[in-house]
Order: sequence, then structure tokens, then C-alpha cells
Amino acid sequence: MAFDPTTLKYDANGLIPAIAQSETGEVLMMAWMNAEAVQRTLDSGRVTYWSRSRQAFWVKGETSGHVQRLLEFRIDCDRDCLLMVVEQEGPACHTNRRSCFYTAVRDGSEVELMAPMAP
Amino acid sequence: MAFDPTTLKYDANGLIPAIAQSETGEVLMMAWMNAEAVQRTLDSGRVTYWSRSRQAFWVKGETSGHVQRLLEFRIDCDRDCLLMVVEQEGPACHTNRRSCFYTAVRDGSEVELMAPMAP
Repeated sequence: MAFDPTTLKYDANGLIPAIAQSETGEVLMMAWMNAEAVQRTLDSGRVTYWSRSRQAFWVKGETSGHVQRLLEFRIDCDRDCLLMVVEQEGPACHTNRRSCFYTAVRDGSEVELMAPMAP
Repeated sequence: MAFDPTTLKYDANGLIPAIAQSETGEVLMMAWMNAEAVQRTLDSGRVTYWSRSRQAFWVKGETSGHVQRLLEFRIDCDRDCLLMVVEQEGPACHTNRRSCFYTAVRDGSEVELMAPMAP
């Protein structure tokens, strides 16, 4: 079946959550896409989100160099969430950590799981 | 630092997205939690979402038996997304597939990646 980005289910703001996972299985981050960001990601092979704070397209790594090359684009059963399997250049997180999910809750307390990567 | 669920960033509906990942690295599903679902998940060790369609707590697997035992609870850098590392009993998806992300887009077409599990 030919894929049409408009057949995905977007929220009231026209956005769908997109999870980025490395080819080694690590969940790196979650951000948002609109239908055009979905199409740009597929066309370019460079993961492209919609920045809610800047209200602009966000080609991941465009300024930092920490690009995400698309390896596989997946859709969930309800068509309201995306999973991008990516080749991540350097850290995915703006704090310079490999993943944005670097904090765990253990025994009721927050614990930092990973340090920022060397520049 | 002691963890307080009210310090997470919830959306206008009081919800935060929660990704479930198996201990083997597979991304299984994404659903939503409110602050009380977060607390119930931590207290019980059973992943508990908020069902937007039913407007009720949803202890994953309560009726199907396909429970998610919490192995690790992670928070992202912006505190607006959660990652649950879980031990998943059977399929995570209501279609009886292991993961909800069973569809890929390849060469412009949708491809089914996995079949439903045996009952």
C-alpha cells in the first residue's frame, strides 16, 4: 500500500510524536512531526521534526552536526505514533548526552545514568 | 533528589507520553500517563497508563494478562516524556503482535514487519 502522510493521526495541533531509536536499540529522544516533516524525513533520509518552541522545521543536527540518518520509518497500530530507527551522529540530547533519557527513578529518587559526551 | 511526579511537564490535558521498551531493546508501544498513573506505576511496579478513550486508569494487561512489569522508569531532559523499560508478558499490541510498531514505510509503501503471536 502506498504511504500517504496525511493518513496518519495528528493531534489538535497537527502533530504526531516521533520516537528516535538507534540501530543498537537505544531510545534516544522523542519529538514531534507534522505531515510535511514526515514527508521531508522520508524524502531526504534526514530526520526532520517540527519544533513547537520555534514553530519551524527542525532538521536534527543541522546546526550541531548531530544528524539522524533514517534507517527505518515505522508506524504504530493506531497510526498516531512514529518510530524512527536512526544512525545517530554523536549525542542526540542538547545536553550532549547520547540519549535524552539519562535520568532514572530508583527507590524514589532521581539518578543520573549517563554523563555528557566529550566534545 | 527525591522524585515528585508533579514536577514532570504534562500537556494541556494533564498527560505525558510514556514509551515502553522491552529489556531486549524493542520499542513496544507508546501511551499516556497522568501524575497519578505515574505514581501508581512506581508504587505497584505494574505499568499503568491513562486511557484517553475510556478516561480511566489502564493497568496494562489487567484484562488481557499481557502485563508490563516495570524494570526501570526514565525521564527525558525536558521532563516531558517517559521511558518505561519493562518485562512484557506476551504481545504488547492489541492486535496480538509483540510491538505496536509493526508497520514500516519502505520505498514509499507500507510493509507489515511482524505477524500476530500465537494465542
